[in-house]
Amino acid sequence: MDANGADLGPAEVAAGAAIAAERGTRVLLFGPAEQIGSTPDGVEVVDAPLSIAKAPDPALAVRGTPDASIVLATKAVAEGRADALVSGGSTGAALAAGLFNIRRARGIYRPALALPMPVPGAPVLLLDVGASPEVRPEHLVQFAFMGAAFAQAVLGVAAPRVGLMSNGAEPGKGTPDVISAHARLVETGGRINFIGNVEGNQVTEGVADVVVMDGFTGNVTLKLIEGVSSKLMRSIRETAVKSPRGRLGGLLLRRPLKSLRETIDPELAGGAYMLGLRRTGVVAHGRFTRTGFARAIEVAERAVREDVVGRTLAALDAAGALRQAPSSDAPASVQST
Amino acid sequence: MDANGADLGPAEVAAGAAIAAERGTRVLLFGPAEQIGSTPDGVEVVDAPLSIAKAPDPALAVRGTPDASIVLATKAVAEGRADALVSGGSTGAALAAGLFNIRRARGIYRPALALPMPVPGAPVLLLDVGASPEVRPEHLVQFAFMGAAFAQAVLGVAAPRVGLMSNGAEPGKGTPDVISAHARLVETGGRINFIGNVEGNQVTEGVADVVVMDGFTGNVTLKLIEGVSSKLMRSIRETAVKSPRGRLGGLLLRRPLKSLRETIDPELAGGAYMLGLRRTGVVAHGRFTRTGFARAIEVAERAVREDVVGRTLAALDAAGALRQAPSSDAPASVQST
Repeated sequence: MDANGADLGPAEVAAGAAIAAERGTRVLLFGPAEQIGSTPDGVEVVDAPLSIAKAPDPALAVRGTPDASIVLATKAVAEGRADALVSGGSTGAALAAGLFNIRRARGIYRPALALPMPVPGAPVLLLDVGASPEVRPEHLVQFAFMGAAFAQAVLGVAAPRVGLMSNGAEPGKGTPDVISAHARLVETGGRINFIGNVEGNQVTEGVADVVVMDGFTGNVTLKLIEGVSSKLMRSIRETAVKSPRGRLGGLLLRRPLKSLRETIDPELAGGAYMLGLRRTGVVAHGRFTRTGFARAIEVAERAVREDVVGRTLAALDAAGALRQAPSSDAPASVQST
Repeated sequence: MDANGADLGPAEVAAGAAIAAERGTRVLLFGPAEQIGSTPDGVEVVDAPLSIAKAPDPALAVRGTPDASIVLATKAVAEGRADALVSGGSTGAALAAGLFNIRRARGIYRPALALPMPVPGAPVLLLDVGASPEVRPEHLVQFAFMGAAFAQAVLGVAAPRVGLMSNGAEPGKGTPDVISAHARLVETGGRINFIGNVEGNQVTEGVADVVVMDGFTGNVTLKLIEGVSSKLMRSIRETAVKSPRGRLGGLLLRRPLKSLRETIDPELAGGAYMLGLRRTGVVAHGRFTRTGFARAIEVAERAVREDVVGRTLAALDAAGALRQAPSSDAPASVQST
């Protein structure tokens, strides 16, 4: 686990690691030992004060800073000294270091960031939310299988319904790449529970357990859901306080709304999952408190226990959706070196 | 105006036209005369019972159904018998018929659908929300100018702040096309108030008056905003009714929340605007009541009065962003024939 990158600082990440350790998970924590201080049994601190969490070009920073905490953490995972990676906040640095050191699993075109979105009564896994802004149809097909395997193994959904984000329900709707991905997913007939296109207004309606899209659309989607929810909650509050009736009503609703906010608390999900690498990676949100960091470690541990990586590759293999031997233009080495 | 395509039927569209006529706008209404019945002075009905509002392939339907109400309505606009088009609901048919008959304005690559989103305290014009799912950088640049000119002329924003939707604030974030569009918009230096990239969580925060994106992302964005708002309002209600305190609070908040809902009522905006054609087009939402249809006619009339088409082309011309003489692959004729 990388302790750098969290808004509340490395000590808060360490406090999350301590909670996880109490529950029996062993944590190897890379970060500034001075700021982290003493830790309980089960949390081993490796002094790595150098942070590249805020680097403008993460890939460049990873290659140029071998002593950075996230680089050391990913190396520990790559070398088998740890089973999974957990990052304390910087998505860009975690992805770059993950690609560089843990590397893509054989047959995977592109990694994807998957985010379990805690919608009340209709939880949904969104991927990719930002690892691969531009994708080809075969990448979207892999994302569909990666998301389904993850939802099954880690989220406990028996036969995940997988939808493809588009601008219309019909198979012919979307960009040429989305239309082509739709056709390929239909062809996999039965190897995945593909329910067809999903539109923006359906994402929070529980029609699909997994919604697949390119990393650009996914990032916009994720941030729109956060932004619109937050704006609407504030608008309701501001409208309510304008009248005595409204103020009283707001007071009476405070407790129920608190419970609603807890239901949709992003810390519950533990963060976003880096799928498609040789090992599992979890990127906690930089805004998390110790509870969220502990949760991130917990879900990483579950992903290892349930062998998400192995199950994903097996499903892709069975569907004939793995990438064949690298072609001469070798995108694998282009991305990871 | 096309009376076909509305959920409540042609009579409701006609009722909207009647309201607009009372305010002094003359309406030429194409639709089934039998269902429309008698209309007041100022609303002239042209019997056109044939509807292609639900056609699976609108472009094909437009070419194969010369008597369809939307085809006749767009022809009336093309021939100068009407100054603007208003559609009663079907976006696909209105776009296809608009491209085919009204045609793109000289120098415009692609049309865009622009939607004024009524966010409390932070109204924002989103474009494209679905006319052109896949675009090139030069198309995004034109959308920026089209949106700015529209916001200025019709929405009354003095110097519209124009943002480019992306998955990060930095100029280097986004797909290659978005990054290239960003650079070109920076180059226009001063000819447009370009504020840089806008992320999903900023769309409803009032940082920009206009947010530009491809039609795929825009359609997803628009529907996510609708879907998330609706889901959250329902979740709050469902949470509130679970306890007596909550029920009372909800009752007290009913009136303030009604006023909030009225503020964000999509009927207020009149619908989405077809920009980039030789004449203005407004596509009302199929779910609208007569109020929304009357509003759609009102804003179409204002767009004509303020010469949005002329002002847009002048701004594009001044910025050197108009398309030069058609190249040999002539996308103009490919799309409109």
